[in-house]
Amino acid sequence: MRDKTKLAQFAPKIENETALGRIILVCEHASHHIPPEWGDLGLSPDLFRAHIAWDPGALGLARGLSQRLDAPLVHATLSRLIYDCNRAPDMPGAMPARSEIHDIPGNANISATERLHRTTAVYLPFHDALHSLIARRIALGLRPVIITVHSFTPIYFGQPRPVEFGVIHDADPTLARAIHAAARQTKLNTQLNAPYSAADDVTHTLRVQATPYGLPNAMLEIRNDLIATAAAEDAMADLLAPVLNIGLVEIQRQAKAS
Amino acid sequence: MRDKTKLAQFAPKIENETALGRIILVCEHASHHIPPEWGDLGLSPDLFRAHIAWDPGALGLARGLSQRLDAPLVHATLSRLIYDCNRAPDMPGAMPARSEIHDIPGNANISATERLHRTTAVYLPFHDALHSLIARRIALGLRPVIITVHSFTPIYFGQPRPVEFGVIHDADPTLARAIHAAARQTKLNTQLNAPYSAADDVTHTLRVQATPYGLPNAMLEIRNDLIATAAAEDAMADLLAPVLNIGLVEIQRQAKAS
Repeated sequence: MRDKTKLAQFAPKIENETALGRIILVCEHASHHIPPEWGDLGLSPDLFRAHIAWDPGALGLARGLSQRLDAPLVHATLSRLIYDCNRAPDMPGAMPARSEIHDIPGNANISATERLHRTTAVYLPFHDALHSLIARRIALGLRPVIITVHSFTPIYFGQPRPVEFGVIHDADPTLARAIHAAARQTKLNTQLNAPYSAADDVTHTLRVQATPYGLPNAMLEIRNDLIATAAAEDAMADLLAPVLNIGLVEIQRQAKAS
Repeated sequence: MRDKTKLAQFAPKIENETALGRIILVCEHASHHIPPEWGDLGLSPDLFRAHIAWDPGALGLARGLSQRLDAPLVHATLSRLIYDCNRAPDMPGAMPARSEIHDIPGNANISATERLHRTTAVYLPFHDALHSLIARRIALGLRPVIITVHSFTPIYFGQPRPVEFGVIHDADPTLARAIHAAARQTKLNTQLNAPYSAADDVTHTLRVQATPYGLPNAMLEIRNDLIATAAAEDAMADLLAPVLNIGLVEIQRQAKAS
């Protein structure tokens, strides 16, 4: 039996928790860490640093945005290959046996006990911690705005992707549209609901955490070749922080006008 | 400072946790208990047993259904006047200063610290426990059906209410419609989305716990004069258990047909 002390190891980290900005940043795919109890999942070492294990650059960018926007940041501390916190426990992608063109041998035949363990050890602490942060701000009348930060690979199934910055929404498109409009001031190839959309089941965190409370929300997807170094992450944070701020001001203007 | 051990006192109770039925029953207004730290909220003793403090009969009925349907039951252990777990932390009804025709003096001027304390001590443990029960079943491929059990007062603001059994839904009406149809076999005055509906913000639990996962869900409202004794609660459980079962079979039939 795994004890509770050990389970707490897999809890997310919260940075800048007492920050006063209205945005809460979330990074579900921040880490490529595989804790020793899962061995190497049958993968070669280079794959641990590939995009199938995490979203390269996303945490660095999210941290840069957290500082610039005075926003709390909740991020996962282990690889999406153990549990992808942006997926419900019965989605195939939650503990994927295959990711893009790679088999994940250690996830090929997951027992019921193991599915339950990963859900209890990784998924629930992640969402409980985020829910607590959100509900406590709501209790104080500080309704937060939820923004998840992701990166995507420039080449997928052999095809190059022209989009550089994707802005994706769950049920309520208001904030995503405002961010998309504000991104015109950058030279980025920005697209709404690309390279994925809610129809691909990629908005689970927004659906569970933001939509039920009617909180404005968006998922950001940055092409990972644009945030491949610490300096590039920083430059992208410089570029996107004002875009998010303009989006926020715009939805506040719309709310007042309605 | 209140310590964590003390906070655990206000956690919900889970009965029949390992039951194998597909339904999870929830009773947010099961208790009229006011823990000593909140004194008497300035209310006279008779009001603690009145419908403003809890849903009389709802827990007894829910327990009866839990036994008959082999369903886990999650229920609150303190009064909705401290925190109404079927309300988001910024809704006026979460810690109501007034309920129907009664002022709640102890809730008249709640400080930010106190709102935060009640949210952390009551709301979050309730929803975390329910979320854990739901997510663990989903992880095992046992997608549950969420049914909340409530009672309402026969006279409200001086007006008698003819409805005896209300079936209310959040975004997805499928299960509520099937239960409403199945209730024709009873002699109860059964109505859909009465005496309340989602538009009155009464489906918070369903919205947070069921809708994001696409789980079938319904809120049951039974007029409390029909479940005023243990024998009446039992008789109502006898009457409604087959109705819920027929509703469940019907939505499973529809899912197969589609």
